[in-house]
Amino acid sequence: MANNKHDVIVIGAGLSGLSAAWLLHKENVDVVVLEARDRVGGRTYTIHNSDVGYCDLGGSYAGPTQNRLFRIAKEVDVDNYILPDKDQSVWLENGKAIPFKVTGYFPFFWNPFIYTDFNYLMREWDRMGEMIPKDAPWDCKYAKEWDNKTMQQWIDENIWTKTVRELARQQVNINVCAEPEEVSMLWFLWYVVQCGGFLRISSNTNGGQERKFHGGTQQISIKISERIGSERVKLNSAVARIQQNEIGVMVTTLDGDTYKADHVIISIPPPLTAHITYDPPLPPLRLQHAQRIPMGSAMKCIAYYKTPFWTKKNLTGSIIAVDQKCPFVHVINDTKPDGSFPAVVTFVVGNKAREFIVKTTEERKRLVCEYLAIAYDNEEALHPVHYLEKSWMTEPYSGGCYTAIIPPGQLTKYGKIIREPVGRLYFAGTETATEWSGYMDGAIQAGERASRQVLHTIGKLSADEIWQNEPQSLDVPAYPFKNTFIERNLPSVGGFVSFFVSSLLVGGAVAGYVIYKNKLIDVSINWK
Amino acid sequence: MANNKHDVIVIGAGLSGLSAAWLLHKENVDVVVLEARDRVGGRTYTIHNSDVGYCDLGGSYAGPTQNRLFRIAKEVDVDNYILPDKDQSVWLENGKAIPFKVTGYFPFFWNPFIYTDFNYLMREWDRMGEMIPKDAPWDCKYAKEWDNKTMQQWIDENIWTKTVRELARQQVNINVCAEPEEVSMLWFLWYVVQCGGFLRISSNTNGGQERKFHGGTQQISIKISERIGSERVKLNSAVARIQQNEIGVMVTTLDGDTYKADHVIISIPPPLTAHITYDPPLPPLRLQHAQRIPMGSAMKCIAYYKTPFWTKKNLTGSIIAVDQKCPFVHVINDTKPDGSFPAVVTFVVGNKAREFIVKTTEERKRLVCEYLAIAYDNEEALHPVHYLEKSWMTEPYSGGCYTAIIPPGQLTKYGKIIREPVGRLYFAGTETATEWSGYMDGAIQAGERASRQVLHTIGKLSADEIWQNEPQSLDVPAYPFKNTFIERNLPSVGGFVSFFVSSLLVGGAVAGYVIYKNKLIDVSINWK
Repeated sequence: MANNKHDVIVIGAGLSGLSAAWLLHKENVDVVVLEARDRVGGRTYTIHNSDVGYCDLGGSYAGPTQNRLFRIAKEVDVDNYILPDKDQSVWLENGKAIPFKVTGYFPFFWNPFIYTDFNYLMREWDRMGEMIPKDAPWDCKYAKEWDNKTMQQWIDENIWTKTVRELARQQVNINVCAEPEEVSMLWFLWYVVQCGGFLRISSNTNGGQERKFHGGTQQISIKISERIGSERVKLNSAVARIQQNEIGVMVTTLDGDTYKADHVIISIPPPLTAHITYDPPLPPLRLQHAQRIPMGSAMKCIAYYKTPFWTKKNLTGSIIAVDQKCPFVHVINDTKPDGSFPAVVTFVVGNKAREFIVKTTEERKRLVCEYLAIAYDNEEALHPVHYLEKSWMTEPYSGGCYTAIIPPGQLTKYGKIIREPVGRLYFAGTETATEWSGYMDGAIQAGERASRQVLHTIGKLSADEIWQNEPQSLDVPAYPFKNTFIERNLPSVGGFVSFFVSSLLVGGAVAGYVIYKNKLIDVSINWK
Repeated sequence: MANNKHDVIVIGAGLSGLSAAWLLHKENVDVVVLEARDRVGGRTYTIHNSDVGYCDLGGSYAGPTQNRLFRIAKEVDVDNYILPDKDQSVWLENGKAIPFKVTGYFPFFWNPFIYTDFNYLMREWDRMGEMIPKDAPWDCKYAKEWDNKTMQQWIDENIWTKTVRELARQQVNINVCAEPEEVSMLWFLWYVVQCGGFLRISSNTNGGQERKFHGGTQQISIKISERIGSERVKLNSAVARIQQNEIGVMVTTLDGDTYKADHVIISIPPPLTAHITYDPPLPPLRLQHAQRIPMGSAMKCIAYYKTPFWTKKNLTGSIIAVDQKCPFVHVINDTKPDGSFPAVVTFVVGNKAREFIVKTTEERKRLVCEYLAIAYDNEEALHPVHYLEKSWMTEPYSGGCYTAIIPPGQLTKYGKIIREPVGRLYFAGTETATEWSGYMDGAIQAGERASRQVLHTIGKLSADEIWQNEPQSLDVPAYPFKNTFIERNLPSVGGFVSFFVSSLLVGGAVAGYVIYKNKLIDVSINWK
């Protein structure tokens, strides 16, 4: 037992927990990491075999402003590469595929109503988002009003065209693996803005999907784990109980192993924090909070081909699907940067994931390939040489992916407690981040912040050093997104309609005045 | 280990788990019940001391159509009594108390807009509710549309007067311990209808709050437990792990005790089912369902007085509070039927509970008594001889009270799986009931149904015997609620407004015609 006493126990060897442990380790704090699974990496998981080379089944993409991720990756010698983004993407709607030249992420909509609607959505999400404090969305002036609405309500009230309503749904789908009717409007708008806004979160070039890591993302966790010392990272150690008192904390695993420490950093998805038995019990609002922040619903389905046949038609492989029947909402080329293992990765999320998971692998494979064939207008898509899939809903130690979602009303009722320590317990995990929360970068921010909270508690750091800004990566520069004058000033479709009606009224009045002045009509009402 | 092999293990010794175990026990099935707490009864909990005599801190009320509860209570010799309902109740709004004669539960609203609005609410909730199958709300014709909305949306779209909007909120508060913006409209309407409709769920006489049990409700569980044999009910046995294979199931407690059986009935609140580690893991939709069905937020605060001073003004003690500042939404006389221990029990639920729980006991006591003094217009309320409170949000093995609530979108996306067995595992608990779910009666329905599922599996019962209708209690008759012709046919305020506008238009047209016909005005337009 005596040798199981440490300064700090970190629960969860995902990127957040390991970032926390590494920072403490560098400060000569005696740390041990307890991991429920038989591997590190959490929601980053890279498989290796001769069919696929390597493949990220979980978190994979990175882009400008994710400076903490690039700093850590560089420190452990994991290189990144830029995804191809020069050729055409495909827009899939109502079973029809329309190739388009990528400008950012979205096509240019020639239909003026659709263009106006889309422009309004993009501008409004950012405009509202900028009113939401990243570190305290509950302090937003409109917090209650927006939190008590679902994103679906905002879409119903503001978007006029079917295409942009479907696109708005697709954007909620692809960003948070949920449907607009199940998430708080305040939370979703916060989610977008804390990633840097609509274009930053959705773009390939200059956005969240600009790059991938050579050899996969799980390596980063594996290499951190090696730096800390693998004897400090205990696999197959699911935590069942945490007991704390004035002397310290004792953590007991499901198999009955015990570890003692002065402090504990809990770095697991929020709904899973309630799976542990606490003595004394967690405070009531934290207990109920854990019931109110479920994980998103996501599958990745990857199809491998003999050749990257889509390039023959100058396609990058990217697909934006706003098609109700198509199982995926988004596709990205997953061919290795040297051209080996031609492949595309499809994202099946939200309702589509819930419907997909009850089918057989064969059914899923067939459906994915059928819709790839439609999108690429090429029957070669029907004949993959290999098919790979991963359901994160099936993983008890993740509970879902990418991140926790927040239903209406809950962010203002419970949100505040997410980063509040409970005695000797501190909370990390990407959900507790204030920048790129839900992403690998947020996982690192949260882990390092939780470690600095502990360092502050043990007198190694002042309070104002807990939160630290990250300098911009020199290797991965971020550029601002420029909106054109038209994008900034074009009214909404609603605005157009008001304008049109006002014009009619004003025009009518002017015409009436002209008619009257020129005595073109004789109007007389004579009361008898 | 060998003596720890049973036919069936029931997890949870609440009323549902014990009903399940008792039914099996009567069929000579070897059953053991594992309970995490040091007591039986779950969300029914009665304390005994000289300050209060006895007091139900959890589930307490019962009424007509709760036939299973009255059957079981009679079987274990627990008598009930009818609550006083003859004098006046108090309506509390904007800090003003208005006594009113109880007709059912609600006052008669003299303001015609309020009356019309309230009548519309009552009628519409029931009309929509009747379209929702009790055993399969997801099969309702409007399931998706209603599930994707919050109750707040329905209120915003349909209720015109501030008073009835607040009353609608109060009704969601008092019935499910949540706010209208956090619950699915489909789910809430289902909840009301599966209790028998708006008047059944809300009324004292002839409704859910008609009666209480002499000596408290926990007795029922204690006495069932005695009939089964207390050696079969293992207290302090929180379950940590369930392993099942083709041979049987092994259940391991947090302290490492193991129990083996052929089948397991899990009878704990749905969000808590995920706290157990399953091998093999639960199916993905069940895993995610458990994250999406949080428990309500409730406190009971009980004030004891030297005398039942409110009776001097012909008050029963009941209060309906639609007052934003008042901490409680509802009050019931809790004096013993023999007149001893004069007391009132106040219900602090939803947002009010979340705000209340972070205050001190002294602050809560002061606030409760201040508002009782306003409601009863009597300063005696400020001086209780004893004050008692219970927060169910603070109980890790309940997670909240009274029942699990369902946020928008989740009932249609996940609801179906709630009663589906997983291999050797069956699911009980009041949340899985189809009548009076959320109540003690539903707990019994669910427990007995789960037991019959097991009995069917082991060949002791046919499939069509699993679900059994309960004959009406002879001791507690139920009467239909009669709506007057006006209640059935009065239009909504919206209908009135339409009618008013139509009347103006029609009236105007008729007037215009009369004026024209009688040449009262000379209108001529001459184009030049």
